[in-house]
Amino acid sequence: MRQQYYMPTRVIMGKDCIKSNPDIFREIGNKVLIVTGASSARKNGSLDDVTSVLSSNGQTWTIFDRVPPNPSIACVREGAALAKKENVDSVIAIGGGSPMDAAKAINLLACQDISDDNLFSGQYGTEIMPMIFIPTTAGTGSEVTPYSILTNDRAQTKTSLASPILFPKYAFLDAGYMENMPIDITINTAIDALSHSIEGMLSKRANPITNSIAAESIRRISSCFDALKSGKLTLEQRFELLYGSTLAGMVIANTGTTAVHSMGYSLTYFHNVDHGRANGLILPTFLSYISKYDPGIVGSILSIMGYKSVQEFKDVLDGLLGERESLSREEVEKYAAIASKSKNASNSIVIPGMEDLTDILSVALLK
Amino acid sequence: MRQQYYMPTRVIMGKDCIKSNPDIFREIGNKVLIVTGASSARKNGSLDDVTSVLSSNGQTWTIFDRVPPNPSIACVREGAALAKKENVDSVIAIGGGSPMDAAKAINLLACQDISDDNLFSGQYGTEIMPMIFIPTTAGTGSEVTPYSILTNDRAQTKTSLASPILFPKYAFLDAGYMENMPIDITINTAIDALSHSIEGMLSKRANPITNSIAAESIRRISSCFDALKSGKLTLEQRFELLYGSTLAGMVIANTGTTAVHSMGYSLTYFHNVDHGRANGLILPTFLSYISKYDPGIVGSILSIMGYKSVQEFKDVLDGLLGERESLSREEVEKYAAIASKSKNASNSIVIPGMEDLTDILSVALLK
Repeated sequence: MRQQYYMPTRVIMGKDCIKSNPDIFREIGNKVLIVTGASSARKNGSLDDVTSVLSSNGQTWTIFDRVPPNPSIACVREGAALAKKENVDSVIAIGGGSPMDAAKAINLLACQDISDDNLFSGQYGTEIMPMIFIPTTAGTGSEVTPYSILTNDRAQTKTSLASPILFPKYAFLDAGYMENMPIDITINTAIDALSHSIEGMLSKRANPITNSIAAESIRRISSCFDALKSGKLTLEQRFELLYGSTLAGMVIANTGTTAVHSMGYSLTYFHNVDHGRANGLILPTFLSYISKYDPGIVGSILSIMGYKSVQEFKDVLDGLLGERESLSREEVEKYAAIASKSKNASNSIVIPGMEDLTDILSVALLK
Repeated sequence: MRQQYYMPTRVIMGKDCIKSNPDIFREIGNKVLIVTGASSARKNGSLDDVTSVLSSNGQTWTIFDRVPPNPSIACVREGAALAKKENVDSVIAIGGGSPMDAAKAINLLACQDISDDNLFSGQYGTEIMPMIFIPTTAGTGSEVTPYSILTNDRAQTKTSLASPILFPKYAFLDAGYMENMPIDITINTAIDALSHSIEGMLSKRANPITNSIAAESIRRISSCFDALKSGKLTLEQRFELLYGSTLAGMVIANTGTTAVHSMGYSLTYFHNVDHGRANGLILPTFLSYISKYDPGIVGSILSIMGYKSVQEFKDVLDGLLGERESLSREEVEKYAAIASKSKNASNSIVIPGMEDLTDILSVALLK
């Protein structure tokens, strides 16, 4: 297994960083496709900030705002068709994981002819338009990863497109857009980011550089647990969560995720459970499973957060997540079977088999 | 001040990582210029590992091994002439900071016509050959920075060439080449790396991502202080120092260094004091100076290492550095004047004036 670290996106950060860096926007192209969700980028001010910079730069743009949560292949093909029709030369994504991941796939499909059969192959050409990514949630880390995760109906799960050409050229981090984000979204996305860093440390592709970044990410995110529980966050804490999630993205860009994500995808695909929440429901049980084989690494992760046991960590997460969803025996077995076929599930330092996956899902979620 | 993080070098790491990744070497070109020092790359096995990979790949190479410590402009012009004469298409650097920094300047001067007047301007074209860097000391971090630091006789100091085109394409980290490194070089280079991370946290370009990386770098390096004092390091500790120094390089790639480096350059230029040692002689006094204005940041840095005061840190460094060099009053004033004109000196969160620089040098080194 090659130990490797690579993350070529240029990250610009701080309050009002979009408005204070028009030159970077000018550089990416003349006609921009802006990919975003239905409304949040309008409400939080990020879309206005971007279009006013583009406008004052004399750039033109087309908005594709038809990205729903957990975007499908049909959605990104629709966006790619618009990109081609409008003859854009660059892409700006604004929003959470769904618009950002969709933007990468739209860009790829606008530049290259790729059949549905080959969409998840990773075997692409080199053509891609330059991209600027502006996360308005602090969870996915997509702004610094080479991944685009789409709903894959054939496999009845979510599957990732992965290629170094999918790294955005620039990421802009401004937690000012998150000040009025509802607390449930804030919690779910924070747990998603935390899960990225923890899963990154449990990945067989973990290395000392990714572990260094993961440790600081876990420190930043867990320092906000009390504020998340109280439901009141300062702007400074919003920035901590955002930096924590970008650092977590830098980790999984190199390590990938684990069976936690594989299993979580079924909760999202079949039960519409939010992605971050789905990870959080499974993460502590997965930690207990790994600790049977490698108590050292699990102990290190817990100690970064100041916990002595997995139970202590689980209690805190449960306090944030509230009442758990529950699954039937049949559902548990079906989702374990789907997860066992995923790439992520074989990516951890201990690889869970069907029986292990069934056990983990049962402990976490069986009725 | 734009808060920015960028580091596009792909880092490969671990024992024997060169021999196990011939495909990466094959990719960079057909005829390679290998830049190295006089002997260490031969003694520690790194040159043999590289040439055996190139040989089995069917690539050819020319060795430029005439890089002395603190390379001059004449040295890099000589290397560039060889690169042009031999018509190479790629560059591999093996060694400490001197061969690595020289290799970047050689590459630049082989690809572009740049006069001595413009050499430190940063105003270059885009032409550059792909580079693979293999550090065989754990100090400079040059393998992940856009800097090449050369002796500048006109300014009677060391000055840096800086440009994003100078980031190597790949860095290979294998501490196996450091197993027999003499303890004085091990100490001096470790202190250089530590100084990079600490100065990075004191830079006005510091940001939450560079601070995250710096904190982990300081943790890794300071965990080896006892081993450095004992003179006996395990291979694992050698790797900790190497990863610590690469992380420190990722920091200064974005933050730059401070007056510690500016003042240290005079000790090197006029007294031939090793670069890392020069930084270590000045660093604690600089920390005391900053703490008068920003005790919080200095306290954070000390607490990462487990110290309660600058004095405690200074005592440990002094234990590693042994007897200090000393300067005359005239020397102190001359070096303060040179440092006050340097870019680095105006890069910290508090900018020391002539009087401050004179005070710092006096406290640290006056006879």
